[in-house]
Amino acid sequence: MSKVRNWWWFIDRIGDYEAHMHAITRTVHHENTEFQEVGIVDSATYGKILVLDGDMQSSQKDEFIYHESLVQPAMMSHPNPEKVLILGGGEGATLREALRSKTVKKVVMVDIDKRLVEICKEFLPEYSCGAFEDPRAELVITDALHWLENSNEKFDVIIGDLTDPWPQAPSHGIYSVPFFKLITDRLNEGGLFVTQSSRITFADMHLHNILFETMSKVFPILRTELVYIPGYDMPWSYTIASYTTDPLKISKEEIDSRIAERIGDCLKFYDGEMHHSIFALPKYIREKRKQFLESPDKREEKESVFII
Amino acid sequence: MSKVRNWWWFIDRIGDYEAHMHAITRTVHHENTEFQEVGIVDSATYGKILVLDGDMQSSQKDEFIYHESLVQPAMMSHPNPEKVLILGGGEGATLREALRSKTVKKVVMVDIDKRLVEICKEFLPEYSCGAFEDPRAELVITDALHWLENSNEKFDVIIGDLTDPWPQAPSHGIYSVPFFKLITDRLNEGGLFVTQSSRITFADMHLHNILFETMSKVFPILRTELVYIPGYDMPWSYTIASYTTDPLKISKEEIDSRIAERIGDCLKFYDGEMHHSIFALPKYIREKRKQFLESPDKREEKESVFII
Amino acid sequence: MSKVRNWWWFIDRIGDYEAHMHAITRTVHHENTEFQEVGIVDSATYGKILVLDGDMQSSQKDEFIYHESLVQPAMMSHPNPEKVLILGGGEGATLREALRSKTVKKVVMVDIDKRLVEICKEFLPEYSCGAFEDPRAELVITDALHWLENSNEKFDVIIGDLTDPWPQAPSHGIYSVPFFKLITDRLNEGGLFVTQSSRITFADMHLHNILFETMSKVFPILRTELVYIPGYDMPWSYTIASYTTDPLKISKEEIDSRIAERIGDCLKFYDGEMHHSIFALPKYIREKRKQFLESPDKREEKESVFII
Amino acid sequence: MSKVRNWWWFIDRIGDYEAHMHAITRTVHHENTEFQEVGIVDSATYGKILVLDGDMQSSQKDEFIYHESLVQPAMMSHPNPEKVLILGGGEGATLREALRSKTVKKVVMVDIDKRLVEICKEFLPEYSCGAFEDPRAELVITDALHWLENSNEKFDVIIGDLTDPWPQAPSHGIYSVPFFKLITDRLNEGGLFVTQSSRITFADMHLHNILFETMSKVFPILRTELVYIPGYDMPWSYTIASYTTDPLKISKEEIDSRIAERIGDCLKFYDGEMHHSIFALPKYIREKRKQFLESPDKREEKESVFII
Repeated sequence: MSKVRNWWWFIDRIGDYEAHMHAITRTVHHENTEFQEVGIVDSATYGKILVLDGDMQSSQKDEFIYHESLVQPAMMSHPNPEKVLILGGGEGATLREALRSKTVKKVVMVDIDKRLVEICKEFLPEYSCGAFEDPRAELVITDALHWLENSNEKFDVIIGDLTDPWPQAPSHGIYSVPFFKLITDRLNEGGLFVTQSSRITFADMHLHNILFETMSKVFPILRTELVYIPGYDMPWSYTIASYTTDPLKISKEEIDSRIAERIGDCLKFYDGEMHHSIFALPKYIREKRKQFLESPDKREEKESVFII
Repeated sequence: MSKVRNWWWFIDRIGDYEAHMHAITRTVHHENTEFQEVGIVDSATYGKILVLDGDMQSSQKDEFIYHESLVQPAMMSHPNPEKVLILGGGEGATLREALRSKTVKKVVMVDIDKRLVEICKEFLPEYSCGAFEDPRAELVITDALHWLENSNEKFDVIIGDLTDPWPQAPSHGIYSVPFFKLITDRLNEGGLFVTQSSRITFADMHLHNILFETMSKVFPILRTELVYIPGYDMPWSYTIASYTTDPLKISKEEIDSRIAERIGDCLKFYDGEMHHSIFALPKYIREKRKQFLESPDKREEKESVFII
Repeated sequence: MSKVRNWWWFIDRIGDYEAHMHAITRTVHHENTEFQEVGIVDSATYGKILVLDGDMQSSQKDEFIYHESLVQPAMMSHPNPEKVLILGGGEGATLREALRSKTVKKVVMVDIDKRLVEICKEFLPEYSCGAFEDPRAELVITDALHWLENSNEKFDVIIGDLTDPWPQAPSHGIYSVPFFKLITDRLNEGGLFVTQSSRITFADMHLHNILFETMSKVFPILRTELVYIPGYDMPWSYTIASYTTDPLKISKEEIDSRIAERIGDCLKFYDGEMHHSIFALPKYIREKRKQFLESPDKREEKESVFII
Repeated sequence: MSKVRNWWWFIDRIGDYEAHMHAITRTVHHENTEFQEVGIVDSATYGKILVLDGDMQSSQKDEFIYHESLVQPAMMSHPNPEKVLILGGGEGATLREALRSKTVKKVVMVDIDKRLVEICKEFLPEYSCGAFEDPRAELVITDALHWLENSNEKFDVIIGDLTDPWPQAPSHGIYSVPFFKLITDRLNEGGLFVTQSSRITFADMHLHNILFETMSKVFPILRTELVYIPGYDMPWSYTIASYTTDPLKISKEEIDSRIAERIGDCLKFYDGEMHHSIFALPKYIREKRKQFLESPDKREEKESVFII
């Protein structure tokens, strides 16, 4: 970094009226793949930052929070997860988390962007940490929807680690009732599906609400985690969906005992104490979502979330 | 706001490497009081924002999160709070929250900055919402430490709503063992003390750790809440201290029943569901604090928190 | 200003890829008039800054550069300016400059925005410096085009001090061949017309070229000044138009002698030495403009200047 | 560049209260050499930008303005420049400009930072444009001051293309009376020395004034050019020094004829028309400098220019 002053900044714009500034110390890699602009920059506070199409995805120093929150609450809610499917997840950190459990015999990861996976392997090796070389891991490069339509394989846990469905993102248009029905077809009995379900901020939970509403048309049990991601400067949501398994019915002690048995002591964010805490949404958030779901006609007029 | 573009920004710098940008739509008031620079600006996302010496204090739209978190968990942990003391709290929102409980017979608020209180009454009336006119409220303009030293009055709940003790802040130097001992002298049996205890972010919880350590030399029971404040773009901590009353020993149902009895349905952030959730700290935060407390000699060399 | 740090910024966006940041110390006034958003903020470097619809107009400390450049080269190129017309000019500084010459017997200023004039009188009195009270000054509040169409008065110098014709600006659509023909009808023999003619930067001189081309269809003599305005962080252009009087034909010595006779020693930017210098455009600017004028069919495809 | 939005910015801070933002599209190279931090980033507006220790040096698209202004006015003021010395000039563009004149038989370029020269050759080849391969060019890697002290070679034109002497810059401490005396010893009769002489902005010409004052103790003829550099968003100064040759005594026509003879038509910024124009300083700048030089005791108390 300059001895003199910070001159290089990543300005993460959040709508028109808010932005977060991160001082950059160097560029690690920058490339336009077939599907998206991939930037990896090094920052003073968060280490390497992965930026896709101008959107911060994750950072080296705090990605454990994002990825443990995405993977472990669903995994630990399942009594014995052996087969796991990951949709997206280019960085390889979701794969790493899924493979942590000794119970797991096979993880299939389906990502559309081959170059992104290669770039992450080369420039963000701390993320996958060897996971791609694990004999239990199988990487398939193709469109997630297409793969689901053409496979008969069933899984105990399915993890959606796709980018937000903005208009130009590879994931655009994927979150729909038919998609979620396909997911249920590929779940074993007692299986769980978890997906990142976008930001829930004071100013904006519109995309989350739409996803939640769509999922509620397919899954009887839905539980939303809300976790503050330091590098995002805001909380992120994950929604666990199931026909039969309710994460809230599992005690703190049971979670700690399953972690100890299957993984040991290496998690840094998630444990029994956090398990129930992350599912508690502030009262006003619960009410905003309820109002959205119950009064489709009264929804605030809003510029489409798909234009930023 | 300009029909054309956003040109006016509040840039909230967080150390040298991070900053949050908020688009401003107008200035409500700006004045240098005897003690600090007071700015009130209107923002696109958060409504009016109060800025003291360049530090964001609170915003009109999300202050309910800050102030409910500061006041209600301590109040609801007490079986019957009748007398409350507030140190600082110029905006009047802490006073408003304390007065919500029907059990309360008297609230004394001690703030050093008379002009700040007047400015907030005039330009942020939504914050105090008439609280200063409540016959149970008594406002004393003086130095909090000085007042404590010269009073014999005792309270059920004492609330510290002072700014972070940066070198030029009016609160500089106030958080010390003698100060906390004074606090205990002024608490009735079973009483609770709660104070905002600074940011706990990924990059920085140094000031929190120092406060926590100092408080732990005086109080046997300490419980830290961690709450994401949207306008801060980060979580803020509050620490509840007591000799006998442990907020974690009170059930979700008991909290909801106390709220219903004493207040009714007007809270927007806090309820029984949130009560236990806000006291759960992420595993790595708990470990960072433990390490700080247990190994004074191994504390990371760090530029003083008092220089920003 | 905060003793601690700069938190308040005016970010002057120049297209999508460039911006200038100015630290603000306080807000002087902010109001939406019938025609535009008027902001007056105080800055660390430039004193008070006038911002109209998000565009920086002028600053207290460097407005002498803008206004001397607009008014004096045209005034001093005229042998004996007695009657002057100002179109726009709400701040009153153009009026002040026009009244400096002892030769002047009458200045009519026509501005559409009554509130803007009042705001500037109250909050930027250093700009007009008493000019509105000068018995030779006549202020007319109406649309400039409308006034020109309904008046028979003739002038020695006509000064266009209107904002850039962006779509939502009051000046939108005013710069046209019929408008410039009206101007020539109101000029006495030997008279000069001068107008600010927008930015000429490395990246963008499109609006200037359009104005220059339109003016060239009416006036045989056109001379463009290019002057760096510190507060804009870029050069600004002014174009002097005439049928018979060429500013370049007047010697440095003659300019200095006219200034001495008519004004004395109070100018701070302009004198004989600067007179010829400001009309010299860099070679690449001259060639860019030539190319624009000579090859209408080869003009670079360009997003309309009217969308920023 | 991202199809979606600009997320990557170079923020060029100018003191504490001003900054210029440039949107970046990619990083070309980044390296800490033995002497300085070298960043080359690509920008939306200016093409590649060279940043040394956080200070913008030059950009691909507008460097012709900087380098023609530095080299050609001095070269064209000399009746027959055959030998040229460049101090600094790592990018190679100054070398390119010096070699343009057919009269030139030899150019020695002395730069301390070997890696910087190599980096510029590799990543900014448009700057030097083959100049390093010209048989008339001789590159010496050493400290400029040291080289001057140990050489007896004499030159017609000596060009100082060093960074501003900020405390940590390689050029720190070089601009002194003994240094300028060394320069005069190495000038042939009728020779000229030219150096970039720092910014002259509204807010700050302190460093320029110090340099000018120091040079005035050695050279009887000093002429300062002031040229707006688009990428800097401000004007930059160059000072030509000589014992006998005054650039202002050479006519516009003579300059154009010398350019035509020696170079032909390839210059893009400088020609006879610009020659006299760039030496004209605004009246207030002339007066500020005069005041600085004449009243050493009345100089405004000022934080050292060497701390930014």
